[in-house]
Amino acid sequence: MTSWTGPGDVVFPGTMMDEPLLLKSIVERAGLMFGDQRVVGYTGEGPVERTYAELVTRVRKLASALVRSGVQVGDRVATVAWNTLEHLELFLAVPSIGAVLTPLNVRLHTDELTYILEHAQPKLVFAEESFTDRISADVIVLGEAYEKFLADGDPRFEFPRIPEESACTLCYTGGTTGLPKGVAYTHRSTVLHTLLESLPDYYAFSESDVTVPFVPIFHANAWGIPYASLMAGARLVMPGPFTAPQDMVRILAEQRATYSAGVPTIWHGVAQLPELPDLSSLRMVVAGGSPLSERFLTRFDELGVPVVQGFGMTEANPLVSIGSVPVRSTATGGDRMRIRLSQGRPVPFVEVRIDAEDGELQLRGATVTARYHGQTGGSDKFTADGWMRTGDVAEISAEGVVRIIDRTKDMIKSGGEWIPSVELEDAIAGHPAVAEAAVVAVDDDRWGERPAAFVVLRPGADLSADALREHLAPRVAKWWIPDVVRFGDGIPRTSLGKLDKKAVRLLVTAATEERKQP
Amino acid sequence: MTSWTGPGDVVFPGTMMDEPLLLKSIVERAGLMFGDQRVVGYTGEGPVERTYAELVTRVRKLASALVRSGVQVGDRVATVAWNTLEHLELFLAVPSIGAVLTPLNVRLHTDELTYILEHAQPKLVFAEESFTDRISADVIVLGEAYEKFLADGDPRFEFPRIPEESACTLCYTGGTTGLPKGVAYTHRSTVLHTLLESLPDYYAFSESDVTVPFVPIFHANAWGIPYASLMAGARLVMPGPFTAPQDMVRILAEQRATYSAGVPTIWHGVAQLPELPDLSSLRMVVAGGSPLSERFLTRFDELGVPVVQGFGMTEANPLVSIGSVPVRSTATGGDRMRIRLSQGRPVPFVEVRIDAEDGELQLRGATVTARYHGQTGGSDKFTADGWMRTGDVAEISAEGVVRIIDRTKDMIKSGGEWIPSVELEDAIAGHPAVAEAAVVAVDDDRWGERPAAFVVLRPGADLSADALREHLAPRVAKWWIPDVVRFGDGIPRTSLGKLDKKAVRLLVTAATEERKQP
Repeated sequence: MTSWTGPGDVVFPGTMMDEPLLLKSIVERAGLMFGDQRVVGYTGEGPVERTYAELVTRVRKLASALVRSGVQVGDRVATVAWNTLEHLELFLAVPSIGAVLTPLNVRLHTDELTYILEHAQPKLVFAEESFTDRISADVIVLGEAYEKFLADGDPRFEFPRIPEESACTLCYTGGTTGLPKGVAYTHRSTVLHTLLESLPDYYAFSESDVTVPFVPIFHANAWGIPYASLMAGARLVMPGPFTAPQDMVRILAEQRATYSAGVPTIWHGVAQLPELPDLSSLRMVVAGGSPLSERFLTRFDELGVPVVQGFGMTEANPLVSIGSVPVRSTATGGDRMRIRLSQGRPVPFVEVRIDAEDGELQLRGATVTARYHGQTGGSDKFTADGWMRTGDVAEISAEGVVRIIDRTKDMIKSGGEWIPSVELEDAIAGHPAVAEAAVVAVDDDRWGERPAAFVVLRPGADLSADALREHLAPRVAKWWIPDVVRFGDGIPRTSLGKLDKKAVRLLVTAATEERKQP
Repeated sequence: MTSWTGPGDVVFPGTMMDEPLLLKSIVERAGLMFGDQRVVGYTGEGPVERTYAELVTRVRKLASALVRSGVQVGDRVATVAWNTLEHLELFLAVPSIGAVLTPLNVRLHTDELTYILEHAQPKLVFAEESFTDRISADVIVLGEAYEKFLADGDPRFEFPRIPEESACTLCYTGGTTGLPKGVAYTHRSTVLHTLLESLPDYYAFSESDVTVPFVPIFHANAWGIPYASLMAGARLVMPGPFTAPQDMVRILAEQRATYSAGVPTIWHGVAQLPELPDLSSLRMVVAGGSPLSERFLTRFDELGVPVVQGFGMTEANPLVSIGSVPVRSTATGGDRMRIRLSQGRPVPFVEVRIDAEDGELQLRGATVTARYHGQTGGSDKFTADGWMRTGDVAEISAEGVVRIIDRTKDMIKSGGEWIPSVELEDAIAGHPAVAEAAVVAVDDDRWGERPAAFVVLRPGADLSADALREHLAPRVAKWWIPDVVRFGDGIPRTSLGKLDKKAVRLLVTAATEERKQP
């Protein structure tokens, strides 16, 4: 194999304009091309509608008010809010003046919010009334104070032209291990992400869409859905705080939604509802943030709701791939389900590779982060040759479909042998009495590490640790069988719905063994 | 209105990777994700199929052979060929090694080809056998010599990483003042153009598509369709030299094409066929390069072929907008037709404005050229504040639909190709019998416009229309030769002494043809 390193400089320059990719272009175009299209916001008093023209006028007023209040290019502006119309206005105005939106997870505790606010150093904080008591900073309260803030803004304010490498959004990771980390998306990366996720074989946003992002803005920028919706001229519905299952389906039905997105946990709630309204308008529902199960997909197939797995991460702006079955695939039955349970094909311009040594999935691309905000020194999250480590062990099929097998950090090394925790979890969950299972590594003097299982039984079911081990014996290697089995009422999850391995580890080490009593 | 100029430097940098947008990524991904998809090339011996995997292997071999033969980053590589599989390989390999593809119009005359070759200074020229006699340079003939050239290439050659501002393609246009002008697309602009035209409300390319670009690579890079097809994983069909109406419909039907594109003239030919095969697989046929007529669209409506107007120009990479009716439009009948006859809504990130003084449509964006290759000094094609003048007078509706009303300059657009009237006048005036000549555009059902000449002879001189055409044949492109030649005693002029084009148009349309009698 010959390879060839190109020069670092431009040898024969093109003649094209040096125009930056900026989010303000989406806002400007939305007002010019789709002035009579609507955005909708759900409030305690019901849905509120605004035209794109009205929205863009309010965004210009807000932008002008931010500048007048002293917010400069590069300043952070934090938000603590659900997906409301006010939050949408900040989502558009803050980057459009070159400032940096820092949306905080409303489910975080005071300590975590304080840590992030000290780390991000915002110039202003906007928050909903109900969250203000948790915020140790001056706050402009969304509602009356916010309306007063933008009232005198200039409705014809013109957004500045800044370099596309400028940050537009500072997102903090959920932090399943350690402190939250900041990823600063750029205008360039976010514009490219908007284009990539809009492609026909991904989210396929068009002017005929009615989009409902239940995924919050504080969860990796609401996966870019509001930007993509406005770029397409779609009807964009902000559901506010209404993410309880019965509210979700009511909004989807009322709006005749075509596209929606959220973490699997909230869709799981929808699947449990005794009755569903007519949801036939939905062409795509994305569930992303943690892996889907076959049971989950089968349930939605039965309900006739077209769910697809989205795979991404805060570090990737966030979309990497979706688990749709390639149109030319001849897979049927279980093979087809296997593809739908996989992470799928990456979007263009996001490169994937599998590390030859430990099988780790690594990413490279203009929409992938190279470091964390404020990071000093190196990080084991990035390879020496500039790829990002996902921490996932994966394989890539001949069709380019990525399938995660395990997490590198969740691989348990026992007596020199690897035990993939996800596979062991699946084997435990295969027992009819088991509702959910989590497996973590616990330190062991003799073996280095040993697997420990945390198990949630189905209502009314009865199972002993020994009976579970007997179930596993013919199904997994002998050394996989967990010494420690602990039963509990629910698997601990983070505020973003991800398995909280730290908490599980605490639970399983609290007692060496326990037997579930009927 | 307050406006605010942002800083030129990045104040708060993002954390994202500094990954360039390069066309090689499309090639690499095509091989990895869609290895078993096919490209098809029509030859004299019928259609030839290759898998994407085979195509990418040949592209790597070709790339390696180009590098071995001394082609370096920034070097131009010219081509004179129809849309064949070999041309596709060059279209992919040349930019992927950082060299600059310079596709020449196979219909140009020797003098024009020579001018462009001297201007572009290619390191290598690849041409089909039948065009070699017109090329005043060493040529690698497509066929046996080409196969020999790439035979020893490395099938695992790795493409270099270069800055995205590097040119990938140098396209020549008729321009506005006569001589062809070069526009050097960059990797950045071409990648962005590929993403933009692929969006659901534009060409909407997906893996399920079968695309047939009749528009040649030498016509503004085949409008980027081959890149977009490979990015989507579509079946891409290169029709070779088969652009006669009966061949076109045969290929479209044989391949069950879903998308095709070409200048209105060739589709006009299709509409004239006495019988059409089953073309129901077509979801979109783009006709672009010169304005469509109502008669044209109505005819295709009757045939059940979904034609849409594409508006673009070499200077804009080339797509600006398509004349599709917005989905929420309530227009019916004539109003609907009026929108379809308009230029439509611009793609995102291409800004449009109308000059307050003369109503000219001006463009700005990362996919728009800022100058011409080799241009020294200023140009009246660009405004002082950095917008490109289109030369078209237009209006923009409240829905953002652009509609061209007139042209600021008198250029003739025949069958999608520009004919500069001044240069044609010069060629006519070069005949010893001619004292003065004026050329104007006259409407033509088939070609959109055709040039008509008004000629004043020297005292006592004698010249027939046919003799004038014979004089022009070796001097100008075949399609420049005026169908209508009218002789008169003096060129009509305005009171200010300027050529009165309106009066000339009246004179030449008064008779379809006239021969000067001695």
